[in-house]
Amino acid sequence: MDNEPNLRRRDLLALIGTVAGSSAMYHAMTSLGFASESAYRGPVKLEGNAKGASVLILGAGLAGMTAALELRKAGYKVQILEFNSRAGGRNWTIRGGDVVTELGGFKQKCEFEQGLYINPGPWRIPYHHRALLDYCRRLNVTLEPFIQLNHNAYLHAARAFDGKPQRIRSVKADFQGGVSELLARVTQQGKLDETVSKEDQEILLQSLRAWGALDRDHKYNANLISAEFRGYARDPGGGLTADPLPSEPVGLSEILRSRLWRYLQAFARYNFQTTMFQPVGGMDAIGKAFAREVGEVIRYNARVTQIQQNGSGVTVSYVDAAKPSIVQQATADWCICTIPLSILSQLPLDVSGPMKNAIEAVPYAGSVKIGLQFKRRFWEEDEAIYGGISFTDLPIRQIAYPNYGFNRSGRGILLGAYLFEGANSYEFTAMSPAERVASAVEFGAMIHPQYKHEFENGVAVAWHRVPFTLGCSGEWSDAARTQHYRNLCQIDGRIVLAGEHASDLPAWQEGAILSALDAIGRLHERVVKT
Amino acid sequence: MDNEPNLRRRDLLALIGTVAGSSAMYHAMTSLGFASESAYRGPVKLEGNAKGASVLILGAGLAGMTAALELRKAGYKVQILEFNSRAGGRNWTIRGGDVVTELGGFKQKCEFEQGLYINPGPWRIPYHHRALLDYCRRLNVTLEPFIQLNHNAYLHAARAFDGKPQRIRSVKADFQGGVSELLARVTQQGKLDETVSKEDQEILLQSLRAWGALDRDHKYNANLISAEFRGYARDPGGGLTADPLPSEPVGLSEILRSRLWRYLQAFARYNFQTTMFQPVGGMDAIGKAFAREVGEVIRYNARVTQIQQNGSGVTVSYVDAAKPSIVQQATADWCICTIPLSILSQLPLDVSGPMKNAIEAVPYAGSVKIGLQFKRRFWEEDEAIYGGISFTDLPIRQIAYPNYGFNRSGRGILLGAYLFEGANSYEFTAMSPAERVASAVEFGAMIHPQYKHEFENGVAVAWHRVPFTLGCSGEWSDAARTQHYRNLCQIDGRIVLAGEHASDLPAWQEGAILSALDAIGRLHERVVKT
Repeated sequence: MDNEPNLRRRDLLALIGTVAGSSAMYHAMTSLGFASESAYRGPVKLEGNAKGASVLILGAGLAGMTAALELRKAGYKVQILEFNSRAGGRNWTIRGGDVVTELGGFKQKCEFEQGLYINPGPWRIPYHHRALLDYCRRLNVTLEPFIQLNHNAYLHAARAFDGKPQRIRSVKADFQGGVSELLARVTQQGKLDETVSKEDQEILLQSLRAWGALDRDHKYNANLISAEFRGYARDPGGGLTADPLPSEPVGLSEILRSRLWRYLQAFARYNFQTTMFQPVGGMDAIGKAFAREVGEVIRYNARVTQIQQNGSGVTVSYVDAAKPSIVQQATADWCICTIPLSILSQLPLDVSGPMKNAIEAVPYAGSVKIGLQFKRRFWEEDEAIYGGISFTDLPIRQIAYPNYGFNRSGRGILLGAYLFEGANSYEFTAMSPAERVASAVEFGAMIHPQYKHEFENGVAVAWHRVPFTLGCSGEWSDAARTQHYRNLCQIDGRIVLAGEHASDLPAWQEGAILSALDAIGRLHERVVKT
Repeated sequence: MDNEPNLRRRDLLALIGTVAGSSAMYHAMTSLGFASESAYRGPVKLEGNAKGASVLILGAGLAGMTAALELRKAGYKVQILEFNSRAGGRNWTIRGGDVVTELGGFKQKCEFEQGLYINPGPWRIPYHHRALLDYCRRLNVTLEPFIQLNHNAYLHAARAFDGKPQRIRSVKADFQGGVSELLARVTQQGKLDETVSKEDQEILLQSLRAWGALDRDHKYNANLISAEFRGYARDPGGGLTADPLPSEPVGLSEILRSRLWRYLQAFARYNFQTTMFQPVGGMDAIGKAFAREVGEVIRYNARVTQIQQNGSGVTVSYVDAAKPSIVQQATADWCICTIPLSILSQLPLDVSGPMKNAIEAVPYAGSVKIGLQFKRRFWEEDEAIYGGISFTDLPIRQIAYPNYGFNRSGRGILLGAYLFEGANSYEFTAMSPAERVASAVEFGAMIHPQYKHEFENGVAVAWHRVPFTLGCSGEWSDAARTQHYRNLCQIDGRIVLAGEHASDLPAWQEGAILSALDAIGRLHERVVKT
């Protein structure tokens, strides 16, 4: 659910400017040696009189429940209408016995063993998502590490290394080693003399030797220096069988042509750096914790059909899932709408032209996640892979290993595919759930041959077919964001939008919460002033 | 406890050879795309008749208890003599209420809050320590991740950046960015034309752009590309306060001269790569789990004073800690001695000259660990540091953040110093425990100013003063290992040694276990054959 950032937009923004200013700001911020760069500065304080105003919130996802929790605390009368029969929205965990219904009539009953699960939506929390982490703390959600980088997981390309998966540690070490050897050579040949001082060249050589695991001649070779990073042919041991054997590095040309280096930076990106977290027992622990606080103001199974406003208030029409022919209405002074734009754009809605255009400007990303249950945790037992992710250029893109129940005997669940955007995502969405699962097993077996014998059952969620979102997250283009983003976020009469789509953290739970906090802050300011 | 590998020795070994052979072996091993490089191949099978032979084991650490567990299963009569009143040896956890007694008369009573602890000895388990992990699984020891690399922890040098700690993520990104920019430039200048094909140069440039977070001109600059790795001046947010601001990179010259790059590879070394583990609740969960299996054969508080053997058996003299004047004796057909060489070298011992020389050839590494309790987990609350390690060139060397109780309110324990070998280790060992703690607080406050207000109490273990080991681990020199290692590991009459000192994994629990498995395998072979 957490997509790779859009580098083009960021590139553009960087060109537009703010660099000089930000540099000064950064130095100011870090003058104490530590600074939180997050917009979140602790629990929101809504000071001033709410004057008994009422707020109708559409959607009991994290944005809606954050708004409800904080507004109620500030003295507002709050009600939430929620499409599903549960709170959380995309904050969702699927377990054995759960039924998953998709547009198109597909219905799956999950057959996972008790205690096992997958998170079809968000599944990881970065350390710098300060707002989300603060709510987890305040709401007593217990966290455990989510392993993003596992050096012993695989990188795989169908046309490289005869299709054999490579350990991340060896690709990483060989790339660093090859690049370091190249740069060390040109340094020693005097080819940096124009740009790097002699003194810095000396230190550069030392650093390349360390960083690249080079030998004394600044070569990256098969020896116990490179083995200390890429792994051994035989590990050091004990007693009379202790001697280690080095492994054989792959040459830089082969590494470059394999294109496997493309995956290495996935682990160093800001949103994927250590330390990441997941809630113990499933991501929905967060949605449930919010619902413990605000559950009594949630009206479940309420499908919104129309949103109207005038100078004095908001009227929202909705139907109950069990009685779809009877239209009901809810009214309030204000409305915070967290309905995904994919759905909101199809509803009659009284807002200005600019906001309407904004709502229609954002397509929703497709995403498919497939959970597979196996008889045993062969990835741990046979391959020493504990948590983390293997990346592949096969249509399944990723295989993610569970970050709970480490080193135990018995069954386990893999995330057997995680497609985000792109053609493969549409292909898998077009399949029936059973076909998706079968396909994930077929492709996954090219990386883990044990699949064939160990697979038991699976569940597949294609977000474009999920009735309550019709997509995974708002997929802002650079142009759309420049033209429409601020119009989307303005308070329009008595309506303001919130959710990950109203943030610069698309698809992340933090974006949903920060957008809600920003929206209620502005709403409250308006209420206090009028 | 787990020391950095001795690169000189490995360098030497690499020069000595085995490369060609190992390469072929590696390719053979990895033909299935996955291979365990460990010497451990699953539970040891001691087949053949033990003929009712008895084995006396000295030391109830992991080596001794592994030997006891497996030998008893194979039909041997087993007894263990243990110096301490508990099992585990260096597998040890200190909690509130525990009393720590050192040579020199120092006695500390730990005042940690209930539920908090430090592991003064081993504290982390690599994924490739297959034997240890298998025993954890078989003995039901629950594991959780140990965070080694935390991108948001610090690197610190007293004389760099005016003494301000730098986030690991920014040093890493800036080093990679600077190096990538340099290599990209010489590539574009044609300076690699002799050594790298044109086609590879193209891919190299792409890879450097990705790896180094370079812009389209292959420059590493302040923009949202580099911010995506080194961090932002202001993070992306929500609503109308969403725009991120890039941070300002540090130039390569400053990074090089800071020497902070020295620490970056600490996270990529084979023994420190993800995924690492710790037992839930403290490392001593492992020792306790072994003791649940073999506890009834352990004689506690037994200090060995002499080890004699003749053609028919072994006689070990010992005294009880409570009655040190009464010498008692234990006899058996065979003896597995896991007593640290630092202590064994001081005992009367009937073994051959070569083994005696080996025992005397290995000094023991000094190591100091200091646990500090604070009123609150300020490193998480103020600085978003969850687990992992900050490195510094101050005498404390490391500050390690707890990998349990993440994101909770209330007290927490830092490992406030971890000295391994070197002058600082001796200095801290020479201090009283109270001085060590005070010193750790003083130095630590240079990285975390909150120390001054939040510190409550601490406990300091200097391994050279720990009565049952007189050091942290066997510190083999290259020369000593070449000359003595095999002599140390041979079965000498009826005595064989085991422990981390009898392995090529010094200071690691895996070394202790593998050495025990190797020793009992050879011992059993001899028993079966005779």
